[in-house]
Amino acid sequence: MTSEPRLVEVRRNVMKKNDLLAAGLRDSFRRAGVYVVSLVSSPGSGKTTLLEKTLSQLGRTHRVAALVGDLATDNDAARLARSGAPVRQIVTGTVCHLDAEMVRGALDGWPGEELDFLFIENVGNLVCPALFDLGERKKVVIASVTEGEDKPLKYPHMFRACDVLLLNKIDLLPHVSFDTERFAANARRVNARVRILPLSATRGDGLPEWLGFLRGELTNEPPRVEV
Amino acid sequence: MTSEPRLVEVRRNVMKKNDLLAAGLRDSFRRAGVYVVSLVSSPGSGKTTLLEKTLSQLGRTHRVAALVGDLATDNDAARLARSGAPVRQIVTGTVCHLDAEMVRGALDGWPGEELDFLFIENVGNLVCPALFDLGERKKVVIASVTEGEDKPLKYPHMFRACDVLLLNKIDLLPHVSFDTERFAANARRVNARVRILPLSATRGDGLPEWLGFLRGELTNEPPRVEV
Repeated sequence: MTSEPRLVEVRRNVMKKNDLLAAGLRDSFRRAGVYVVSLVSSPGSGKTTLLEKTLSQLGRTHRVAALVGDLATDNDAARLARSGAPVRQIVTGTVCHLDAEMVRGALDGWPGEELDFLFIENVGNLVCPALFDLGERKKVVIASVTEGEDKPLKYPHMFRACDVLLLNKIDLLPHVSFDTERFAANARRVNARVRILPLSATRGDGLPEWLGFLRGELTNEPPRVEV
Repeated sequence: MTSEPRLVEVRRNVMKKNDLLAAGLRDSFRRAGVYVVSLVSSPGSGKTTLLEKTLSQLGRTHRVAALVGDLATDNDAARLARSGAPVRQIVTGTVCHLDAEMVRGALDGWPGEELDFLFIENVGNLVCPALFDLGERKKVVIASVTEGEDKPLKYPHMFRACDVLLLNKIDLLPHVSFDTERFAANARRVNARVRILPLSATRGDGLPEWLGFLRGELTNEPPRVEV
């Protein structure tokens, strides 16, 4: 994002193109019966650890897969592949977010109708990914208790754009100065409808609620459309 | 940042303009004898706490001031102003980084020659700020032990661009899985010359070394140019 007027104009066209493409993706995911969740957070919030646990545990009852965005390295894809789920890496170079075109490209040749859940892990960045629709059904932000209670107010675009807010690393609460109630109040100031789930991806607290939420969402989905 | 060709072209011109403006700023800082440090990190790494301590403690012996960039709110500026140092806030809206033009605008009317140190706290983002020169003398990245050892490899542009790497929150080392040696080795893989200082901004470990580094830098500066 930038303040430069010429760039703002060009970017507006890019966003419009992205929105159209994302709408097409969303439609094809719906028709194929794939529930798509995108995960965004600042670097080091525990996205990959959470996704690793999610793929392993949800993979016992559902068909799951993941796309993983990073500037460089395929470390995360290698970590996630240990869950046994199909994983594809998107290396973005200097690009600070995923976009719908990258998602479409990465899905090329994947039989979408054989999946229940597709998770898309974005580049670690609380700013730019807020603006790019990836065709997901739910956008999930992960924040951690080590980051401070003020983050929803300081990064309002992202917290406003999300459907679910996972508050991670609650196992560290005894060791940091963090007021969970104040964090939740700050989050609700920018996004009154957001669902907040506290958890510890490493220790396992809150994972049953998170997985229960996902399973429930699938049950509530309209039936798959035969094409 | 984006992969869109038209946007890449426009952005190249924006970067060129930024580089020219930053070179001008760097020259005027040098002539005024102001040592400028920019601070970048992911959200929640402890930039503001570190800066608060730095302004308070360095302010006893030197003339210090700060510019603070945020998408929204002036919470950080209010926190930093408690140190007694002059502080100005730059609210960037949806813009994910500071640029040289914003810095120039924020400095308007400030008597630079009355300062020894100016600190510029960037928007919390490990991606985009790597590419924007602000005319600083040193670029400092703050990472924290809660973020994992792999961050230098996953966000190589930022770790490559920095002069000093502060490893914050070492007070949490007993409670997280983090290998300091591995983190340092990863940092040196992308930036062999980087100086790494471990510290805890909240508890105070490493602050004397950080402040000693800054004071030493000022001593090593060429003498102020009279204009």
